[in-house]
Amino acid sequence: MELLKEKIRKEGKIKEGNVLKVDSFLNHQMDVELFSEIGKEFAGRFAKDQVNKILTIEASGIGIACVAAQSFHVPVVFAKKTQTKNIAGDVYTTKVQSYTHGRIYDIIVAKEFLGKGDRVLLIDDFLANGKALEGLIALVEEAGAELVGAGIVIEKGFQTGGDMLRKKGIRVESLAIVESMDEATGQIVFRENGRSTG
Amino acid sequence: MELLKEKIRKEGKIKEGNVLKVDSFLNHQMDVELFSEIGKEFAGRFAKDQVNKILTIEASGIGIACVAAQSFHVPVVFAKKTQTKNIAGDVYTTKVQSYTHGRIYDIIVAKEFLGKGDRVLLIDDFLANGKALEGLIALVEEAGAELVGAGIVIEKGFQTGGDMLRKKGIRVESLAIVESMDEATGQIVFRENGRSTG
Repeated sequence: MELLKEKIRKEGKIKEGNVLKVDSFLNHQMDVELFSEIGKEFAGRFAKDQVNKILTIEASGIGIACVAAQSFHVPVVFAKKTQTKNIAGDVYTTKVQSYTHGRIYDIIVAKEFLGKGDRVLLIDDFLANGKALEGLIALVEEAGAELVGAGIVIEKGFQTGGDMLRKKGIRVESLAIVESMDEATGQIVFRENGRSTG
Repeated sequence: MELLKEKIRKEGKIKEGNVLKVDSFLNHQMDVELFSEIGKEFAGRFAKDQVNKILTIEASGIGIACVAAQSFHVPVVFAKKTQTKNIAGDVYTTKVQSYTHGRIYDIIVAKEFLGKGDRVLLIDDFLANGKALEGLIALVEEAGAELVGAGIVIEKGFQTGGDMLRKKGIRVESLAIVESMDEATGQIVFRENGRSTG
């Protein structure tokens, strides 16, 4: 998605430890006009898949998921990261290891909002090592729902998550795949249909 | 907002400890078509206020804020609840006591996304004791930005937050104010322009 790649080139900041900061438009400040275009792009790519529910994970996936859901005309469910007293005991749950925070946490979805007959699209802002997405997939499987695929805004192609999931047969549609990035020069190379371009 | 009140009457569940569960449409599963109507309602109420930024707090406020922001054509910034390595050190920060979780946490906003000249509308899904909103107000003040007001989806009118903030001169627009609710009968009474109706 060229509009997104331009935005990443213009506003993305490469930091030590393979961190790509895009918090001016994606995951701290959020450009909702861009989100709307992202939502339309996902809706086009999954147009034939009869998606009836979008599943994401708190926190930064929620904005993208909600705006995208308007193009699908389906509700969003977000997996919560800890058990709170507002959640009933009747939940699907699995454990996820956080790359950013370096710790393991539980994610949960109330059973009443995910189940057999649901055709679920996962949406998230980032895909790196794939741990969050694996967690969401585990919840979909536990619920007996059908996984349509995953719509990702930015995939770090130099980390293993995306290719690992594709090898498992999961359809992963990433709107921008960063093949490599150079902290010194600020250059970002994107993967394009199997080849890499700057 | 009658559409919202109908939804609360139909799907809201009253639980022990003054908990109003609306997680079928507001803060776990999210009805984005309703969110769009909510966004239009906020945009109408704050039409003359030249809002140029919406500020919310993770996690459940983000969906409402992003969809509402589409009616304002402004970006959203969400306050994060803990320091992560993706956030630079240059942040505004304050402490908030959580009603749901019963603990104190830090909220932060990067300085580059909030500052002088910004006219900020706060948006959140719930207003009860007002602690989260007070935290966001503290960040706006620290940033030297101008606070336009707060748009709240559901206010618990029997808790002190909303009236406390209004007494301080803050404009709080709540689309549904629950005056009282009865766990035994399931009845919810809403405040209507100073009077209460069922």
